[in-house]
Amino acid sequence: MKKYTEMTKEELLAEKAELEAKYREYQARNLSLNMARGKPCVEQLNLSMGMMDVLNADSDLTCDDGTDCRNYGVLDGIKEAQELLADMMEVPSDHIIIYGNSSLNVMFDTVARSMSHGVMGSTPWSKLDKVKFLCPVPGYDRHFRITEYFGIEMINIPMTPEGPDMDMVEKLVSEDESIKGIWCVPKYSNPQGYSYSDLTVRRFARLKPAAKDFRIYWDNAYTIHHLYDNEQDNLVEILAECKRAGNPDLVYKFASTSKISFPGSGIAALASSNNNLEDIKEQLGVQTIGHDKVNQLRHVRFFGDIHGMIEHMRKHADILRPKFEAVLEILERELGGLDIGEWTKPKGGYFISFDSLEGCAKDIVARCKKAGVVMTGAGATYPYGKDPKDSNIRIAPSYPPLSDLIIATELFTLCVKLSSINKLLSK
Amino acid sequence: MKKYTEMTKEELLAEKAELEAKYREYQARNLSLNMARGKPCVEQLNLSMGMMDVLNADSDLTCDDGTDCRNYGVLDGIKEAQELLADMMEVPSDHIIIYGNSSLNVMFDTVARSMSHGVMGSTPWSKLDKVKFLCPVPGYDRHFRITEYFGIEMINIPMTPEGPDMDMVEKLVSEDESIKGIWCVPKYSNPQGYSYSDLTVRRFARLKPAAKDFRIYWDNAYTIHHLYDNEQDNLVEILAECKRAGNPDLVYKFASTSKISFPGSGIAALASSNNNLEDIKEQLGVQTIGHDKVNQLRHVRFFGDIHGMIEHMRKHADILRPKFEAVLEILERELGGLDIGEWTKPKGGYFISFDSLEGCAKDIVARCKKAGVVMTGAGATYPYGKDPKDSNIRIAPSYPPLSDLIIATELFTLCVKLSSINKLLSK
Repeated sequence: MKKYTEMTKEELLAEKAELEAKYREYQARNLSLNMARGKPCVEQLNLSMGMMDVLNADSDLTCDDGTDCRNYGVLDGIKEAQELLADMMEVPSDHIIIYGNSSLNVMFDTVARSMSHGVMGSTPWSKLDKVKFLCPVPGYDRHFRITEYFGIEMINIPMTPEGPDMDMVEKLVSEDESIKGIWCVPKYSNPQGYSYSDLTVRRFARLKPAAKDFRIYWDNAYTIHHLYDNEQDNLVEILAECKRAGNPDLVYKFASTSKISFPGSGIAALASSNNNLEDIKEQLGVQTIGHDKVNQLRHVRFFGDIHGMIEHMRKHADILRPKFEAVLEILERELGGLDIGEWTKPKGGYFISFDSLEGCAKDIVARCKKAGVVMTGAGATYPYGKDPKDSNIRIAPSYPPLSDLIIATELFTLCVKLSSINKLLSK
Repeated sequence: MKKYTEMTKEELLAEKAELEAKYREYQARNLSLNMARGKPCVEQLNLSMGMMDVLNADSDLTCDDGTDCRNYGVLDGIKEAQELLADMMEVPSDHIIIYGNSSLNVMFDTVARSMSHGVMGSTPWSKLDKVKFLCPVPGYDRHFRITEYFGIEMINIPMTPEGPDMDMVEKLVSEDESIKGIWCVPKYSNPQGYSYSDLTVRRFARLKPAAKDFRIYWDNAYTIHHLYDNEQDNLVEILAECKRAGNPDLVYKFASTSKISFPGSGIAALASSNNNLEDIKEQLGVQTIGHDKVNQLRHVRFFGDIHGMIEHMRKHADILRPKFEAVLEILERELGGLDIGEWTKPKGGYFISFDSLEGCAKDIVARCKKAGVVMTGAGATYPYGKDPKDSNIRIAPSYPPLSDLIIATELFTLCVKLSSINKLLSK
């Protein structure tokens, strides 16, 4: 197929007429499909149904250390759950706090606490004139909403396949004391599926922030969420690397089992240095008596150990892999060589990132919607919902059944073509 | 027995010698008993073990409205859980948000949000020079810790058997714009077990606060936690009463199933006006994608409806009643008529409140501890841990087995006598 960018006006118009006819056919089908969010599909949820059986009315809900999981207490999580999630997060089990069902909530509370009480004795951010966060873009919309909610100014940092632009990060962080944090999804990043290179992680660990209360918000959401057995991204472990670099307190590391067991009914965790954990527990002890230990125990009994969890993730991969491959195959087949878009080919995580011609993303998403396919809103991957180039679209292949996914992706490529032609014709 | 206050010095010294001998006997027994916190006992926890069986690997975890409880979503709780907890809280089911496992966490977050973002558009409290809360005393230590954590000044309001001193509450609230809230445990109050009279609730609903962002923090922790079938305290429902009084937005009402199902693995809820709920959801939608819906469903399937919950609470009562009665019987037998202490006789809740002679509480608790019985720290029932009269002690009969409870209470009365004699001798 000829590149759209090399077509004459007449060729584009002819192509457009053909595409519009196809588009009307899609519209006539009254589709109602959703590729908006990184939700596991029913088959994935079914994988964890055994979790409903591991505890029953005759079970002993006592921990190894004698704690009755049914009663009050244990602020930082039962030992067994600390061990399991520490193994998952590749940190020592005495450097972790087990929370409730949502790592997003932990991140929110972490920023909220810094606003009201500062970080390890620093001035509460709410007392400062200006607080800024660095935001690698495209990124995760819910991160950006937290910082926006607290009035924190967000600065875009371009992402590369190696991670955020570290020259820019190092420069800004070392010069500007009002920069207090950076949002990172270091592995199978949301939405691009990029994993930070070894060098990137090492440079992160060696940052020399002007602000003592600067922290890296390391949301390792997809730490064991591989698509393949033999092609897996590997990440230098940031907590240990920070320690080696003489920066032990630089990072908060977040994770959860939301996309391992059940979203909304999993367990979340935060790993950090002892200094940070002590600081956090001062607040946590006021906020709650403890999180859901029965659910912690349920997870431990279901997975057994990290090996059990890894085996479980292979089953997730078996379900997700064909979906990712189907999307990538259609993108390549329909858009390859047309010069109207680029996309990532992740080996894990939940997303594929698509970049259209500049100024087309909103239009593409709107066209999809009019034909019954809901995509993540264009712009959502940028702070304040503003993609300066209006080109990034997040594709979430996990939720729809494969048959729906194929239709939705084909429609998506059709919409990309139509938008691109209009764009090219308007030049 | 003669009143201690009417004994001669010689009589007191003779009594003291006898009591000290007994105290040494207790010390020799190497006791290790705990009456410190309102924790359910093992038999109570066992009542809910059936909850581990209601969901199994073959269960359909779909709600009536088709929501798959295993996946992301539903910010304010599944409909069935809203209905169950609304019935429990005596509010309409569209005036409620279902949260995670801890109502304390909901209260913390409510204060935290008011600090950072104000209440329904008011100035964030963190931007104000001074924020104050009224604290009926004695009260719940964890309430006071939340307000203390946020640097909110706490003002003691004396409790009466009818509830807080409403003359004082009305006066302060109407005069001082910096007063933003009042902590209330309106039914079977912590620690006295008092329930607010109808008139008290009506006066609460008719408050005319100087501050638009003043709210009543109505922690209805013991709403269905009766000890008796036929002698139950009843409370005017505050939300409806506020509406009738033209003050619909005046109250946040909190509750949880912590002492109904499992502490730490129950579900919590907040009920309020639509205006307040909208205000809250703006933050909640940034903080989380949703709470644990599988656990919500588990509670609904286990209890069925409010009737099932009420029947369940009778079983709790059957376990708790003998414990309360044993404590009261010992207090009466050992201390009745001695004129050295007063105590409450609640019909529900988790505590008995004891008031010693002035200046004796710390000493009594310390003596208990030296003989192996841990009580709630003296002063804990007051803001900043400061009981101005050093006389209030909270007795928590729920956790120890009855046999231990009897020993612990007998020792307690012995310590009360010893402290009182020393106090009287020192005059």
